[in-house]
Amino acid sequence: MTTPPLPPLRFNAFAMNCVSHINHGQWVRDDTSQTSYTDLETWVNLARTLERGYFDALFLADVIGTYDTFRAGRETAVREGLQTPVNDPSLLVAALAHATEHLGLAFTQSVLQEPPYNFARRLSTLDHLTKGRVAWNVVTSYLESAAKGLGLDGLPLHDERYDRAEEYTDVLYKLLEGSWEENAVVRDRARRIYADPARIHDVHHEGRFYRVNGPHLSEPSPQRTPLLFQAGSSERGREFAARNAEAVFLGAISPQGARTQVEDVRARAVAHGREGGDILFFQGLTLIIGSTEEEAERKLADYRDHTSLDGFAAHLSGSLQLDLSEVDFDAPVGEIDTNGVQGFVRSLVEGAPDKTWTFGEALRARAWTRPVAGVPERIADELEQWREAGIDGINLSYVTTPGSFEDFADHLAPVLQKRGLLKTEYEEGTLRQKLFGRGDRLPATHPAGRYRRG
Amino acid sequence: MTTPPLPPLRFNAFAMNCVSHINHGQWVRDDTSQTSYTDLETWVNLARTLERGYFDALFLADVIGTYDTFRAGRETAVREGLQTPVNDPSLLVAALAHATEHLGLAFTQSVLQEPPYNFARRLSTLDHLTKGRVAWNVVTSYLESAAKGLGLDGLPLHDERYDRAEEYTDVLYKLLEGSWEENAVVRDRARRIYADPARIHDVHHEGRFYRVNGPHLSEPSPQRTPLLFQAGSSERGREFAARNAEAVFLGAISPQGARTQVEDVRARAVAHGREGGDILFFQGLTLIIGSTEEEAERKLADYRDHTSLDGFAAHLSGSLQLDLSEVDFDAPVGEIDTNGVQGFVRSLVEGAPDKTWTFGEALRARAWTRPVAGVPERIADELEQWREAGIDGINLSYVTTPGSFEDFADHLAPVLQKRGLLKTEYEEGTLRQKLFGRGDRLPATHPAGRYRRG
Repeated sequence: MTTPPLPPLRFNAFAMNCVSHINHGQWVRDDTSQTSYTDLETWVNLARTLERGYFDALFLADVIGTYDTFRAGRETAVREGLQTPVNDPSLLVAALAHATEHLGLAFTQSVLQEPPYNFARRLSTLDHLTKGRVAWNVVTSYLESAAKGLGLDGLPLHDERYDRAEEYTDVLYKLLEGSWEENAVVRDRARRIYADPARIHDVHHEGRFYRVNGPHLSEPSPQRTPLLFQAGSSERGREFAARNAEAVFLGAISPQGARTQVEDVRARAVAHGREGGDILFFQGLTLIIGSTEEEAERKLADYRDHTSLDGFAAHLSGSLQLDLSEVDFDAPVGEIDTNGVQGFVRSLVEGAPDKTWTFGEALRARAWTRPVAGVPERIADELEQWREAGIDGINLSYVTTPGSFEDFADHLAPVLQKRGLLKTEYEEGTLRQKLFGRGDRLPATHPAGRYRRG
Repeated sequence: MTTPPLPPLRFNAFAMNCVSHINHGQWVRDDTSQTSYTDLETWVNLARTLERGYFDALFLADVIGTYDTFRAGRETAVREGLQTPVNDPSLLVAALAHATEHLGLAFTQSVLQEPPYNFARRLSTLDHLTKGRVAWNVVTSYLESAAKGLGLDGLPLHDERYDRAEEYTDVLYKLLEGSWEENAVVRDRARRIYADPARIHDVHHEGRFYRVNGPHLSEPSPQRTPLLFQAGSSERGREFAARNAEAVFLGAISPQGARTQVEDVRARAVAHGREGGDILFFQGLTLIIGSTEEEAERKLADYRDHTSLDGFAAHLSGSLQLDLSEVDFDAPVGEIDTNGVQGFVRSLVEGAPDKTWTFGEALRARAWTRPVAGVPERIADELEQWREAGIDGINLSYVTTPGSFEDFADHLAPVLQKRGLLKTEYEEGTLRQKLFGRGDRLPATHPAGRYRRG
């Protein structure tokens, strides 16, 4: 008996509508377009490059607020272009859908940003305009500055943010799945009936955080609920993912660490009546591709030369809401409290192979997503290990853009395709159909399923 | 002495991300693409047609909620596709900017929809992505159903809605104009400084309805505050327009009626320290263009045959929040109370040339925007009258789409150009520069001006 070959990995490009997303300090280079993030053409070119490289999706992160914890202010973030300034990612989606044919378009919005009634319509609109290629990355916000900007008394505590997210997504499911019956839109020109009023239902939701009374404003879109991404790694985050997510973004330190997280969330999903395979896991990585090992080493050295440790520290300080300038960069990671901390950060600190490593060493070694440098064959070997550990796909951070993605499309993709690690053609249909191959809509076992009618 | 010739009129295409916007009943025709409103290609084709016809902008209306007042329910609106379903207009903007070079892109959002901190970022993002071709149409909402959907206790009363709008726009000005100094973004690669923290300022706003504490999230965009449209015609609406608007949408019954409104709002603007010419006035019209008078008559008959009076009555009932099915369509318009009523409706009722006209007659005669049918020369004569009355531009509703706009571009535009009623080329620059010819930013005398620094 032979084991059937594992399916190809999925690939997302991980980016953000800002200057410096993850790999801080690189924006100053001549070979990156990061300072042109306000120009739509930059994004159209990127999307077309990604489709050329058989990427499944462009994954647009978003964080509202500013990273103002490090050195008790936003100075470092502003100087580094570290997610400040930051523009809205959802407004790029339709333009990028028009410029491509198959690429999925995942964008992030926090449940704190606007009422669910309004956001549900944005989701439906984007799902219509992309013909079902949109995904929403559910986030709960972690910057106190976001709450101040939004006029809240303060950022709700971690667990309350997840309580809100559970209720917010629940309201969205009611609107997106339950308000308009499948055959509500009849488009009967002879009888002059666009939709059948008897098949459109009010949502009545009176919850702890949200209230909606009325029908959804949009007619059913190809996926109804867009594909759902999530990245929480705390206890509550994993529970939320196990219940709601269809794709989970991990920042594991090693394939073995990823395996543990995947198995944990899959088991939780099964406990919620879903199937383990209902969730795909994407590991965050930075790849540095050279045509020779020497070139890869040179590019890695270039990356390190441009890396801003201040940038990483300010980023991490914001994520932790803890001023790391007051923490000794020389303190052993074993002494850092990771209670209630975001995924990547927690995995960075907890995953340091040696607890006597200083924080600075862990930061330098890891730099948010693992930089893997080498010739395509060597990178393919590494990716194979992630796949064997149960990872379904990779969320690829860039060093330069679109350079890192061009390297992928031009040099890595052919090698990955030869080894069955990357698809050789796109499947037809919606993003959900492309990823799961079993239809456009969420399965009936998903929490959204219970709101369907008929 | 000769009078200098009047400048060409401006033209906006008036549309909405829904099936039936204004001219209800036409969606069933084979020669309209209204049922394809969910398809991005429909909008891209429209935008390109408009640019071919030298339109200044696509003006995207929006109304949240459903028209559920007529016959005490939403049945008519749903059957007629009357602004239900309705998708978000702002999400079309970037795609249409990418497909065109000069066309302005105006979209509507109500001040009730989301916190100003979040909306300010959407405005900046769109202004960046369009290179300064975006406009925002400020509305305050008039459907009780919108308030229910948003989870409010009820729709605020008319004047309180304007209080909110005044505060909301004020907060936006603080964020868009006052937070980032003109030279805050330095992009100094050598010194590794993207922006100068000393030139980015917190907004501290604690008002009756809104609270914001923090800096704006986006760097300054070409126009900073996008071009501001407004359509209110009530006392408060006119005051709001006089203070804030740069373009006002009128639904006057006649050129003479328009002149009165224009003069009133211009005088109010001057009282607020602005110049009369700081506001452009756009009259709403429906044009039916034939190559012969007979063809125009035939097309007008076709329009009337397809017109749904039920649709208009349901639309008007929603706008008035008054069930017109309980009002006798045979009642004289003189008996209808127009207190606190929206612009078009008020002008429809008040502007009926004979107060003994029945409501049904007024509705049939006016049908929301005046349908003017004829050969291009005849329509040009009509447009000339509006121009002579002080109207700066026309907001053009369609009968069929893109048919009505193709007729404009192919048959009317050459005649208008010959008569100096339509530009023969686009000016360069942002939408504000194209419309006013004096720079990208709001004048210093605008209320936004007082928040500028340095």
